[in-house]
Amino acid sequence: MEKREELYRGKAKTVYLTDDSDKLILLFRNDTSAFDGEKIEQLERKGEVNNKFNHFIMSRLEEAGISTQVEALVSDTESLVKKLKMIPVECVVRNVAAGSLVRRLGVEEGQSLNPPVFEFFLKNDALHDPMVNDFHIVSFGWATEAQIASMKALTFAVNNVLKKLFDDAGMILVDYKLEFGLDKDGEIVLGDEFTPDGCRLWDKETRKKMDKDRFRQGLGSVVETYIEVAERLGIKL
Amino acid sequence: MEKREELYRGKAKTVYLTDDSDKLILLFRNDTSAFDGEKIEQLERKGEVNNKFNHFIMSRLEEAGISTQVEALVSDTESLVKKLKMIPVECVVRNVAAGSLVRRLGVEEGQSLNPPVFEFFLKNDALHDPMVNDFHIVSFGWATEAQIASMKALTFAVNNVLKKLFDDAGMILVDYKLEFGLDKDGEIVLGDEFTPDGCRLWDKETRKKMDKDRFRQGLGSVVETYIEVAERLGIKL
Repeated sequence: MEKREELYRGKAKTVYLTDDSDKLILLFRNDTSAFDGEKIEQLERKGEVNNKFNHFIMSRLEEAGISTQVEALVSDTESLVKKLKMIPVECVVRNVAAGSLVRRLGVEEGQSLNPPVFEFFLKNDALHDPMVNDFHIVSFGWATEAQIASMKALTFAVNNVLKKLFDDAGMILVDYKLEFGLDKDGEIVLGDEFTPDGCRLWDKETRKKMDKDRFRQGLGSVVETYIEVAERLGIKL
Repeated sequence: MEKREELYRGKAKTVYLTDDSDKLILLFRNDTSAFDGEKIEQLERKGEVNNKFNHFIMSRLEEAGISTQVEALVSDTESLVKKLKMIPVECVVRNVAAGSLVRRLGVEEGQSLNPPVFEFFLKNDALHDPMVNDFHIVSFGWATEAQIASMKALTFAVNNVLKKLFDDAGMILVDYKLEFGLDKDGEIVLGDEFTPDGCRLWDKETRKKMDKDRFRQGLGSVVETYIEVAERLGIKL
């Protein structure tokens, strides 16, 4: 597999073409951003940790029967993935109230959500990723009703797998966001990444924050804590 | 029916108890508010126009088989209604993009929405009525899944009746919000009001705004235009 020119540079990853038109390479950079890119820092080793973390989680999801874009680790900071046509919405599941939910609805941080809450957000930094619903998605043509149903079912299926995985390692999966795309056959496949940059993880006993909230809230030891999470899961770094 | 003490004073209506514990009197005041109550004015005759407008629309909806709380006009500005336990969400249907949808999603005002968009908002001025979805409503106990399904079905049923009613009178029903409550038997009943304060109406030919946007946007002739809408519908004032 040969890496070719840059296709797209996101806030934390760069996407490269390869000599196979159905495959891309994702480079996980050390860049860490928050507040729609207003706060940006380079955090040493974060690219490597997130690349390996993502590969581990996606492999567990594949084992559970959930299709993901990840094919293989190709270097410490790069993974080979299937090329997808990304659907421009983020799928969020919340098991515990935190973050924007607390601000929007005035509920208490840490409140358990039964049943868990599912939310769609439009991926649009200029509009600050507004919350949308099934009707907006269908009416503006971002996805079909069948694709919406698949994204919801897959996001909850991921919850079943990962809640247990993190619980077994002494952590609470508070919330997370997923992004899906369509492969060359039009099938819905989990894309983007699953790392502590895109979820909330709390220590089960102390409720210590072990995710990007350490960066957002200036709590320090960001990558050190990501490494602690990885070690608890048995991820080789 | 005897009017008793004030139960609740909203931004544009006051609710009174009556000597029948299952019935209330709604007083439509001249107060007109916008931007979560930041802009408030008294507009002469608005209470009377909205009371009669609401009675007319609710009667048309009853004729179409949709249960509403309205029982009878009891004065120029008052209606007798069933007492309901209100569900704290607003149900919005949008046939054409306007208002907050345009600001939130960066879409063009006046764009037709096919299919129409449905949105839930939590009734909470302090939080600026945030958009919520089915999952929030169930998880926080504001309504059950069955009640959510009823509210959506009834809100779209109202659309079928009112789109035609306004179209026949030379107007476009751009969007509207409804509120539902539970009657003493636990049945979902349309409550609150349907008036030009809570919907958008445009003239079909000129696209002149004929609703509360005249007040929000300082276009003038607010009540005069409400009266024009009422006259086009054949409402006796």
